[in-house]
Amino acid sequence: MGCDGTRVAVVIEGRPSATVEEDRMGRATVRLDPAFTVGPVRPRMFGSFVEHMGRCVYTGIYEPGHPAADELGFRTDVAELVRELGVTLVRYPGGNFVSNYRWEDGVGPKADRPRQLDLAWRSVETNQVGTDDFVDWARRVGVEPMMAVNLGTRGLQDAVDLLLYCNARPGTRLPDQRVANGHVEPHDIRVWCLGNELDGLWQIGHKTAEEYARVAEETARAMRQVDGRVELVACGSSNRAMPTFGTWERVVLERCFDLVEHISAHAYYEPVDGDVDSFLAAGEDMHRFIEAVVATADHVAAVKGSDKRVMVSFDEWNVWYHSRFPGERSLEIREAPELIEDVYDVRDAVVVGSLLITLLQHADRVSMACQAQLVNVIAPILTRPGGPAWRQTIFHPFALTARYARGTVLRPAVVSDRVETRAYGPVDAVVVTATHDPESGDLTVFVVNRSRTESSELTLDVAPPVGGDPTAYVLVEHLVVHDEDPSATNTEERPHRVTPHPGDAAVDGATLTATLPATSWHCIRLTERGVR
Amino acid sequence: MGCDGTRVAVVIEGRPSATVEEDRMGRATVRLDPAFTVGPVRPRMFGSFVEHMGRCVYTGIYEPGHPAADELGFRTDVAELVRELGVTLVRYPGGNFVSNYRWEDGVGPKADRPRQLDLAWRSVETNQVGTDDFVDWARRVGVEPMMAVNLGTRGLQDAVDLLLYCNARPGTRLPDQRVANGHVEPHDIRVWCLGNELDGLWQIGHKTAEEYARVAEETARAMRQVDGRVELVACGSSNRAMPTFGTWERVVLERCFDLVEHISAHAYYEPVDGDVDSFLAAGEDMHRFIEAVVATADHVAAVKGSDKRVMVSFDEWNVWYHSRFPGERSLEIREAPELIEDVYDVRDAVVVGSLLITLLQHADRVSMACQAQLVNVIAPILTRPGGPAWRQTIFHPFALTARYARGTVLRPAVVSDRVETRAYGPVDAVVVTATHDPESGDLTVFVVNRSRTESSELTLDVAPPVGGDPTAYVLVEHLVVHDEDPSATNTEERPHRVTPHPGDAAVDGATLTATLPATSWHCIRLTERGVR
Amino acid sequence: MGCDGTRVAVVIEGRPSATVEEDRMGRATVRLDPAFTVGPVRPRMFGSFVEHMGRCVYTGIYEPGHPAADELGFRTDVAELVRELGVTLVRYPGGNFVSNYRWEDGVGPKADRPRQLDLAWRSVETNQVGTDDFVDWARRVGVEPMMAVNLGTRGLQDAVDLLLYCNARPGTRLPDQRVANGHVEPHDIRVWCLGNELDGLWQIGHKTAEEYARVAEETARAMRQVDGRVELVACGSSNRAMPTFGTWERVVLERCFDLVEHISAHAYYEPVDGDVDSFLAAGEDMHRFIEAVVATADHVAAVKGSDKRVMVSFDEWNVWYHSRFPGERSLEIREAPELIEDVYDVRDAVVVGSLLITLLQHADRVSMACQAQLVNVIAPILTRPGGPAWRQTIFHPFALTARYARGTVLRPAVVSDRVETRAYGPVDAVVVTATHDPESGDLTVFVVNRSRTESSELTLDVAPPVGGDPTAYVLVEHLVVHDEDPSATNTEERPHRVTPHPGDAAVDGATLTATLPATSWHCIRLTERGVR
Repeated sequence: MGCDGTRVAVVIEGRPSATVEEDRMGRATVRLDPAFTVGPVRPRMFGSFVEHMGRCVYTGIYEPGHPAADELGFRTDVAELVRELGVTLVRYPGGNFVSNYRWEDGVGPKADRPRQLDLAWRSVETNQVGTDDFVDWARRVGVEPMMAVNLGTRGLQDAVDLLLYCNARPGTRLPDQRVANGHVEPHDIRVWCLGNELDGLWQIGHKTAEEYARVAEETARAMRQVDGRVELVACGSSNRAMPTFGTWERVVLERCFDLVEHISAHAYYEPVDGDVDSFLAAGEDMHRFIEAVVATADHVAAVKGSDKRVMVSFDEWNVWYHSRFPGERSLEIREAPELIEDVYDVRDAVVVGSLLITLLQHADRVSMACQAQLVNVIAPILTRPGGPAWRQTIFHPFALTARYARGTVLRPAVVSDRVETRAYGPVDAVVVTATHDPESGDLTVFVVNRSRTESSELTLDVAPPVGGDPTAYVLVEHLVVHDEDPSATNTEERPHRVTPHPGDAAVDGATLTATLPATSWHCIRLTERGVR
Repeated sequence: MGCDGTRVAVVIEGRPSATVEEDRMGRATVRLDPAFTVGPVRPRMFGSFVEHMGRCVYTGIYEPGHPAADELGFRTDVAELVRELGVTLVRYPGGNFVSNYRWEDGVGPKADRPRQLDLAWRSVETNQVGTDDFVDWARRVGVEPMMAVNLGTRGLQDAVDLLLYCNARPGTRLPDQRVANGHVEPHDIRVWCLGNELDGLWQIGHKTAEEYARVAEETARAMRQVDGRVELVACGSSNRAMPTFGTWERVVLERCFDLVEHISAHAYYEPVDGDVDSFLAAGEDMHRFIEAVVATADHVAAVKGSDKRVMVSFDEWNVWYHSRFPGERSLEIREAPELIEDVYDVRDAVVVGSLLITLLQHADRVSMACQAQLVNVIAPILTRPGGPAWRQTIFHPFALTARYARGTVLRPAVVSDRVETRAYGPVDAVVVTATHDPESGDLTVFVVNRSRTESSELTLDVAPPVGGDPTAYVLVEHLVVHDEDPSATNTEERPHRVTPHPGDAAVDGATLTATLPATSWHCIRLTERGVR
Repeated sequence: MGCDGTRVAVVIEGRPSATVEEDRMGRATVRLDPAFTVGPVRPRMFGSFVEHMGRCVYTGIYEPGHPAADELGFRTDVAELVRELGVTLVRYPGGNFVSNYRWEDGVGPKADRPRQLDLAWRSVETNQVGTDDFVDWARRVGVEPMMAVNLGTRGLQDAVDLLLYCNARPGTRLPDQRVANGHVEPHDIRVWCLGNELDGLWQIGHKTAEEYARVAEETARAMRQVDGRVELVACGSSNRAMPTFGTWERVVLERCFDLVEHISAHAYYEPVDGDVDSFLAAGEDMHRFIEAVVATADHVAAVKGSDKRVMVSFDEWNVWYHSRFPGERSLEIREAPELIEDVYDVRDAVVVGSLLITLLQHADRVSMACQAQLVNVIAPILTRPGGPAWRQTIFHPFALTARYARGTVLRPAVVSDRVETRAYGPVDAVVVTATHDPESGDLTVFVVNRSRTESSELTLDVAPPVGGDPTAYVLVEHLVVHDEDPSATNTEERPHRVTPHPGDAAVDGATLTATLPATSWHCIRLTERGVR
């Protein structure tokens, strides 16, 4: 999690008359045809992130003594919300934290574990949760762990040691230590991040592209020697505005192309200087980011004469109000401090929903994605120590997408009104993706209206199958994230203030129509008549 | 025109049982929907190439004293065939030739023009045709001239001089010289190639990527200073198997990104070591080539934080039997020698048709393409000095595509049987593109069956327009390039041995069916009922 | 021990008529004159190699509980064979193994030593043999230990620590630890390898030439600071076909020239694609390898204006059938697995003998050589756990050369028939070296006939001393390694199937004649009349 958010400084003026036209109604026409597809819905797209930062671990997922804590000290109320959220994969233990983490501090008897000063977030790390504890939790909650190794203050040897500790069969020192710590069976962790954001000057042990490429290459080669089944993620850029963006990925992949399956991308969004139009269009940035990384990976493939396709692991993304964060340097050193506990409103939820649409639109090349983070730290779930846990607004589009995106992502043909943005120029107001599950016949459409001033009238047709019935699809449900007050939030006192509510979608013959209010996100569920 | 065609040497065996199954019938299902598009049909896609090489110019387009010669010495019979071919753009004067060409030798009174030894093709160049003559011819024939400057033995100053001679208004030395030579009006040539194949060791004045990038950058900057309306083409790779492929494009674009609109690609195909399966699938190479250059250009855009999209100028492509060419070194020095006058058969024509399909499939990023060359030298048109001109087999798919590809290129959804190839692994037997002209209602489908052993049964559906008639399209015509004898050719004696003939396409309701014989190319013309 | 042996891929055809001419008799004429010399016979030329790999250490030199084990668990039967082999120097503990070795794991009480997973050979390392144990064994067997430090996963500090542990006088932490482990006297190890094969991608912690040069330079400087008497060996190339060959040596020596005495070379040979002629001529490769490294070292000397001569440490060489090795990745993790236990035949022994001839021919610049390895792992000695140890075919030429090469290497003048090889072109069938000991008067001639089809008649003259007796030399013994069946081997059941047997050499006046059968190696011992 970096500190240089994409603050796109732009001087062009937005359209000042926008607020005047509040009542205009826009139009969006969508054509779907199950024959035109992008790629499979990849379950790992619905990943999240647990970093040892703020209250994500301590008083987040873990709080011994809490009324809902299990025998290992993990909160079952939080675990229940994580399951409801539909998270599939959780990255751990950082983030910036990992770049000065000693994994050995976090295993073995809890009483023996040292208290350490974490330099990344200037916090006291008690090490009461470590690798074994996290993996145990992940297995109980039903998520796949995704592990990062420390390539900041450490290197090849420690990465190999951690992998041996986690994945090797008993019989040698490190796995035997794991056994002694109560885990006879290997953790069998498949996805490993080769460090975190090492392109960032804020990162402990920051590296140049060449330096990182070399350490990642040799570490990757050694890790593959230990366990031939691991999937490795090379660090890409911390955001698209990094001065080394593009060149970093090229240099890293020129070295590591044959050794990694994925390259990472991170991005956080907020309204910069009050530019809400660009904020609502954050998916444009993510789209260009993904396209640029794919182009770079495929350029390297071309140079190498290879047909291999390196995939994008978008393993940190979210709305994050950097502008409310004072910076690490000003933090007082404490245990489990309240760090960046952004309270999200309806507009933020619409942006989160739109980012999920963008990710699905790139299902051919985005293999994984992790919303950052899971609890308390810019998170869909908030907790009070000793008190309840509740869903933020952004919880809902994530949960609905994770639940209903199934099968294959379709490539819709969309004609939409345009919105002018400072950061991206004119962009479509209405953005759409859809997934189709041939087995169940379910077809789910995810739609966002990114205009903050104009409603839009959606007209959607599904092309009939060859020789088939043009009215094959029936409406199952239309759920909307929207509010008259786009700054409405959920709080401990009013945890259900913002929840999805039914929309007005209706099917007439082969055509579906629905109203898309300004700043709204939609999940429209159809199913093929007679398939189930 | 380079000397290192993509001879992909591969050791995996083809499927030996193929010939046994001659009578098996394959299947291909195609779904079209005019809502799903790639990009516009760009007229410059149907370019050609006139190089001072062999008999392309002399006794090709130009032959004073020929019965059909016009008053300037150009053959009107050839010009008529060029118009029938549908050529839109002609690159001139090379090719390797340009890299040691002095354009001043080719202007002014013909009697004063020097005879020169061309090093590229070891030929005597009489200079009886030069820039003014070519541009005059192009205007009469109705094609756009595309000019290349010499960055082999010359550089910035001569490039600027030629541009001044061609495009500047009278009043200074060089345009005044043009006026003195009979051309008061500027030639107003828009598209300029910054040299030719300078990545190739065979090129006179070959350069490293860095060297070329610098001279191209400075030449481009100066040319833009002369004429702000020119479009510039930087040299890309001479083929996809060049050792510098990918890196060359990156280095060149890192320097020239803001100064050029296009980057070139060249490719020639033949059956290598008798590998006909891979030859029929040559479009795969062209496809991967285009994708790789696009990835590289977009990688550079990402590094530069630019949304600019550099386009691919595929300005040399064709079938060329390198294996029949002894190499420049062994040529005897002569005037207008008979160089690489390949006689094409039906199979070659099918491959040419398939390459045009590939180019159309990339209409979003391929801005221009030039078949190399126009007359006699690996060309669709052959001539006998003093005798007739006739159409080679490859003339026909080019002419049909140039005539009927109109409007917008559609993105078809295709399910096809696969063919195993040594060079590309398994590939679709049937490949399809289509163009749709909303104004006329014309929808033209171009199809190739790349299997050399199996016919295929094509089933094609066009998704009905929203709320429209599912049987909106009627069949206009189905033309096939195919022959029982795939080695059949056209000759002076039998110039019409191979021509397109009607196919068996039929429409039943919303579904079109057609038989695609092994090794066949098809142009299937539909039109919307009632549009015109 | 690398994974990219010199697999010389060659396309030229061998001579197909060879087998027809089986009975042809070739000729070789040799002139020796003790006044013409190459350099001294260096005892370290007869080195070997003990790596923690396969069964070289465990059940090789070390097997507690074996009937022949000494009180420390080392097999005395194996030790006896090592003495008979005439080994002088033994490199330890790797090889690829060293690049992830923690030497501390192998010292101190055996019960406390950890079991570790060795990544190089995917084996379980029990650490029951370590530095002290090996040095003790070496001293008992009468060989000099040659130690390698880990520059793969570790660096300067650990190298210095190991050197302090081994060579420092008591009084500080590390030598005191050695004393506590029972060794008051320093081990006084003179020859140290600065890592192993770090040019190879298979090496854990592989490095670029620049990276390695820097770490070797700083480590060497620090080690010399600890002990001014050490001799240091920089890593050269893992074989002559490495893509960085030559450049690697240059870059490394530009940094380390003043800090090292030796630079390493490694080579393994086998018949590639059945090319036995080139295999028999493997000495040609070794010859070119040595010449190339010497030229590179002297080039750097020239650049530095230095007269220093860096010597070649050919510290891994042998016949190795890579083609029978499945690769490290496919190894199942086990203790002391049976790895690459090649069983050698007569032809292999002839090649080993010829390689020793090549090494002696370069006695001026090759300071050391280590046959890889000593026991079981591509070794002259095989053992059965709990059972006997026996001599492989390759044992014999090594033992004879180590015993009888004494004094000074002579430079013979040879005229020989030629053999055509794919890899090296035409080469001499008969290759000769000789050593002369002025004190004893012994003159020993080592000869190989590399033709696999033709016998050769050897005629050898020794120039008489000035004014001396032209019939000064008398024949002592002629021993031959040859067999009617060149694929004959020694096995546990028939351990003496292949041994040296007497040849037919005869002296007539000043001229020696001998028959050299196809594929044969010879040790011909003469002595000066009346010297002893």
